[in-house]
Amino acid sequence: MAEAGQGMATDIGEQPTTYQRILDGAAAVREVAREVARRDVRHVVLVARGTSDHAALYGSYLSQIRLGRPAGLASPSVVSLYGAHPDVSQALVIGVSQSGRSPDLVEVLDSARRSGATTLALTNAPDSELARVAELHVDILAGPERAVAATKTYTAELLSLLLVVEGIRTGTGAPEPAVARELDRLPELAAQALAGRDHEDVAARLRYATQLVVTGRGYAYATAREASHKIIETSYLSALAYSGADLLHGPVAVADREMPVLTIVGDGPGGAAMNEVIERLRTMHADVITVGPGRAAGEQAHIGVPAVDERYSPLLDILPLQRLALTLALARGEDPDSPRGITKVTHTR
Amino acid sequence: MAEAGQGMATDIGEQPTTYQRILDGAAAVREVAREVARRDVRHVVLVARGTSDHAALYGSYLSQIRLGRPAGLASPSVVSLYGAHPDVSQALVIGVSQSGRSPDLVEVLDSARRSGATTLALTNAPDSELARVAELHVDILAGPERAVAATKTYTAELLSLLLVVEGIRTGTGAPEPAVARELDRLPELAAQALAGRDHEDVAARLRYATQLVVTGRGYAYATAREASHKIIETSYLSALAYSGADLLHGPVAVADREMPVLTIVGDGPGGAAMNEVIERLRTMHADVITVGPGRAAGEQAHIGVPAVDERYSPLLDILPLQRLALTLALARGEDPDSPRGITKVTHTR
Repeated sequence: MAEAGQGMATDIGEQPTTYQRILDGAAAVREVAREVARRDVRHVVLVARGTSDHAALYGSYLSQIRLGRPAGLASPSVVSLYGAHPDVSQALVIGVSQSGRSPDLVEVLDSARRSGATTLALTNAPDSELARVAELHVDILAGPERAVAATKTYTAELLSLLLVVEGIRTGTGAPEPAVARELDRLPELAAQALAGRDHEDVAARLRYATQLVVTGRGYAYATAREASHKIIETSYLSALAYSGADLLHGPVAVADREMPVLTIVGDGPGGAAMNEVIERLRTMHADVITVGPGRAAGEQAHIGVPAVDERYSPLLDILPLQRLALTLALARGEDPDSPRGITKVTHTR
Repeated sequence: MAEAGQGMATDIGEQPTTYQRILDGAAAVREVAREVARRDVRHVVLVARGTSDHAALYGSYLSQIRLGRPAGLASPSVVSLYGAHPDVSQALVIGVSQSGRSPDLVEVLDSARRSGATTLALTNAPDSELARVAELHVDILAGPERAVAATKTYTAELLSLLLVVEGIRTGTGAPEPAVARELDRLPELAAQALAGRDHEDVAARLRYATQLVVTGRGYAYATAREASHKIIETSYLSALAYSGADLLHGPVAVADREMPVLTIVGDGPGGAAMNEVIERLRTMHADVITVGPGRAAGEQAHIGVPAVDERYSPLLDILPLQRLALTLALARGEDPDSPRGITKVTHTR
């Protein structure tokens, strides 16, 4: 029988190689992006569940900021429970799913395609129902994932979405040269992010915590959501996730001496906007643990990651946080390869 | 000095009267809805923070299901931090805010109006910046709110959004006769919902809980989010909120004997879809507390509310949950009128 957490550890360790594989295989993505660029897409709708929903959130920020198109996450139940068929004829509708098998997502993509939308499935399963029902498909090339808790398929979704968006932006399917140069550095930077040991001290610090807040703004909000999800499903902490701004609009009241707060602080406007959040958390005596390339005034502990433009930081910041979830679960005697109550493929309607 | 929680108790108790006031003053809303119906709006973008974000979520479901228009919540940081200006020229952009004063929301509405969108501010403050910057304004007529924790302004936002959407749907600004008949019953049903005492037993049950999950599907997801928010900001529990489907895609792992789960079960497709969620929670031995018009197999405790079509249930289901938050906070020695760390008006950028 395999050692607890061995699958998740292996999945996590493969991410630099997966990034390289996706970059090497980008020709297929370029074709899809070029095709989308030819259509008159007025807005972007993303649909996903669980971990993939956080990749979709990143895709939504990218679509708005890099394509200048309004974008948002759809509620599958509108279609699958209430039988409504919103008119998405001018939309690009992207379904994001590792397995491509949740019936509600399949139904949304099917309804969107019938209504004349440009539909794109992003999956790790080219033979899946979701891939079949959508007009276009991008294979995220992550290879089989061992653990139930998704790690390499999440970051493969992030990078695939980034390539699609940057390819639509230029219209040629390929990213601008400046972006391409940044992307070329990713596998090496990911290896660096995974070489750090800061997560071990933080895991020790959280050994007896029962709750946690994870927060970030802008692009980093996706990282906050996914880190919280990963810690919930492997270590069973009640990990609340909020954008830094939404945190201040009420939930910050939960912060006190007993509350660790993982705070994602990138190198850019999102990170800068976190300063007032950290300040408020400190006046409430919360245990502020920062994640990012630099240290922040008022932090009690820190997890370092390589410095990149905030646009790319979700591809790196999550890596030590996946390690943190794994280490914490093992310290608590849990097996993150098969968390209680869930299986690898979830079917919801 | 006022007794702890007196302000919140009074705010909560005023909701039936507020519903009546909004219905009586619907002529102004009808004019706004008629004007929007004249435009060729292709999709709906909602923007809000905190409690109002949950009202916006309800507005998003209504727009998709009742108007057949794609709809989603915008991330203000796209505009306010990254300086992007997504092309919303074919959108109805609705800003929802009690105070109308958060700078990020004002900036998003301003940017949307410049890009040619139909802009609508829904506030409790007709003289606010947000009301001024939007082309159209709906006064939610809730009157001054006493407590920091929002209650009557939340439900006033829900009802105002419902009136706007139903008025756009018919094109005349007025709801269909069948809908109007349901709305006429609301003040009386709200009074019934507030007359219940079930929340007292549940508050006693949660006296020593430190964490909680709140879940619902479809329209009820907005109620789950807002109930969690209210309990967080008054009683400082780590209250996770998930749609029933998203809960099954991972976070359900957090459920065990120590985990109370408030489950919103309406009378309709959303409620029916909660059965498999309750079943799973029971196999994990979670403490399932249902909220809705009927009892559910496997529940451990129950909060009853009057039966209505699911479309209207967010206007009723939240009422005993607000009472629950208040009762629980008082039992724990907290003052929900002025929770730690937050103030009535929050300014974020």
